[in-house]
Amino acid sequence: MKCKRCRRAEAAVDLPSHHAAFCPDCFFVFFRRQVKEGIRKLRLLAPEDRVLVCVSGGKDSLVLWDVLMEEGYETEGLYIDLGIDGYSDRSKERVLAYAASRGKTPIVVELAKEGIPIPETARCTRMQECSVCGTVKRHFFNRVAAEGKFTVVATGHNLDDETARLLGNLLHWQRDHLARQHPFLPETGGGLVRKVKPLWRVSEVETAAYGFLKGIDYVTEECPLSFDATSLVYKESLSLIEEKMPGTRIVFYQGFLDPSNPLRRAAEAAAQDDAVSPQGGESAAGAGPMGEDGEDILGTPRACASCGAPTFAETCSYCRLKERVRQRRERRAGGRG
Amino acid sequence: MKCKRCRRAEAAVDLPSHHAAFCPDCFFVFFRRQVKEGIRKLRLLAPEDRVLVCVSGGKDSLVLWDVLMEEGYETEGLYIDLGIDGYSDRSKERVLAYAASRGKTPIVVELAKEGIPIPETARCTRMQECSVCGTVKRHFFNRVAAEGKFTVVATGHNLDDETARLLGNLLHWQRDHLARQHPFLPETGGGLVRKVKPLWRVSEVETAAYGFLKGIDYVTEECPLSFDATSLVYKESLSLIEEKMPGTRIVFYQGFLDPSNPLRRAAEAAAQDDAVSPQGGESAAGAGPMGEDGEDILGTPRACASCGAPTFAETCSYCRLKERVRQRRERRAGGRG
Repeated sequence: MKCKRCRRAEAAVDLPSHHAAFCPDCFFVFFRRQVKEGIRKLRLLAPEDRVLVCVSGGKDSLVLWDVLMEEGYETEGLYIDLGIDGYSDRSKERVLAYAASRGKTPIVVELAKEGIPIPETARCTRMQECSVCGTVKRHFFNRVAAEGKFTVVATGHNLDDETARLLGNLLHWQRDHLARQHPFLPETGGGLVRKVKPLWRVSEVETAAYGFLKGIDYVTEECPLSFDATSLVYKESLSLIEEKMPGTRIVFYQGFLDPSNPLRRAAEAAAQDDAVSPQGGESAAGAGPMGEDGEDILGTPRACASCGAPTFAETCSYCRLKERVRQRRERRAGGRG
Repeated sequence: MKCKRCRRAEAAVDLPSHHAAFCPDCFFVFFRRQVKEGIRKLRLLAPEDRVLVCVSGGKDSLVLWDVLMEEGYETEGLYIDLGIDGYSDRSKERVLAYAASRGKTPIVVELAKEGIPIPETARCTRMQECSVCGTVKRHFFNRVAAEGKFTVVATGHNLDDETARLLGNLLHWQRDHLARQHPFLPETGGGLVRKVKPLWRVSEVETAAYGFLKGIDYVTEECPLSFDATSLVYKESLSLIEEKMPGTRIVFYQGFLDPSNPLRRAAEAAAQDDAVSPQGGESAAGAGPMGEDGEDILGTPRACASCGAPTFAETCSYCRLKERVRQRRERRAGGRG
């Protein structure tokens, strides 16, 4: 099959949802256009932005960084070493190698050095790893952005991620999560930086094809601590529909984002009632009107007594997690002594 | 495994979504309770109602009729013979046999005699069979109900049907369909009878188990004209989720029906703006603010010039379909003569 764009080269990527098939060069053009269109439509980024790109070593975030650099944005990569045996080393390697190939050095945060590695923190607090990881990552997204004077944080969530999350939120009518699900979360007072998802219009298959054809070497293994079976079930369920009815995912997500959608209007109204709304992350738990710390979010956030981050409690959830790890370590050391 | 209710008999039906397993007798109690709860919660039926139960010969509608009779409702069955070779005869046989076993004689409408059999009508009008069938059925639901002084029409849609439809409506954000999707559609002026779906809380598997254990002989074949592949894909997709997370379907549907759900509130508001809203059926096409006839529904319906049914055009969609069949037959007869 010939490329549908140049009509000369052999097609390498078949895209039934766009009734198209492209050769590698034309696919790059198509993919970048899709990302640009996603940025333009929701005004995710401005030319003068300093963008902190969160890179995990997986395909989505490295592809995101790649496209944003090619589009001329001022970017730096942030890699958070979660302290997971083997997996974290392999991920970091890919991030460093990719960055080096583009003449970049990513900002690296090592959670082990910060005293809050994910596996130990989850054990100490008896919390789910993904939940701990979400809290810790959000903390550093905001902190590194503030320290480095970045105007925006970008993550690599693609259309499959976003629609799986949307389906899960709809199946359980998690209104609080529905209200906060958007590729654009505005900056709010008190140190919560703007967060954007520029890949929201491109699918997982498209992102993987871009990464592969661009020769980006990324980790393919899933995080060994991630037992987030539910989001995989939602993805599989939507893949089944997408296969039979190509294009359903993008229609689903765009219709959700449509400002005239009653769900979005309800979300906007709630946001106005609540001028400073905390930016709950991907794995924020709880369906009620709760902030990322689990406490009631009515009212205005204050500065964490320990680190200064915005919180609705005395200290922020990050500092509380860290304190519990410290106490547990102390008790253990005491027990041994 | 023993029955979780009586703890004596062997369990025959395993229901992971209810963390239960029942012997046949206890399952009957459970199933009827579920249906009663569904009726009570949404006030679908009152003891004094005269219920017209639409029976197709399939499991759902026969089970519905069975439960409503056992619960003491005054019911009659309505069988619409669609005029589909073989399939219609086999379906009618089951309906008549079931009715006879309960000392009943169903009301039978034969579309061939009415001059509007589904296959010929679809050919003449070049419309999809399911769409023609929906229009014709709705017409007779209302007409037979009015003629027989029934206060309500009941159909056998179960939880799987309703959630598949809901998922499809959400994936495409068909707001008009979302606004009209409810197990209770109120009577409106001008001859549109109240329509209810008392099986909305029970799953397909539960309904099939009830029919099987009760010894109800129903047709298992699908309608040969039904190529409604989309609703099957949505069902399959939800089954995949239900299997991993039992109970998701009922949570999904109940959350949708919750009066505080922004989608329902938007639907209520739209209904108030538009005092007489046509009751679009399962296969009503078009996503805009259109009635079942396809014309603009703003304004008040008038009586069809030909049959008196409520319509927003000069004649109702049923009469227009019928007229096209008649004209086509005439042309053919003329061509032969």
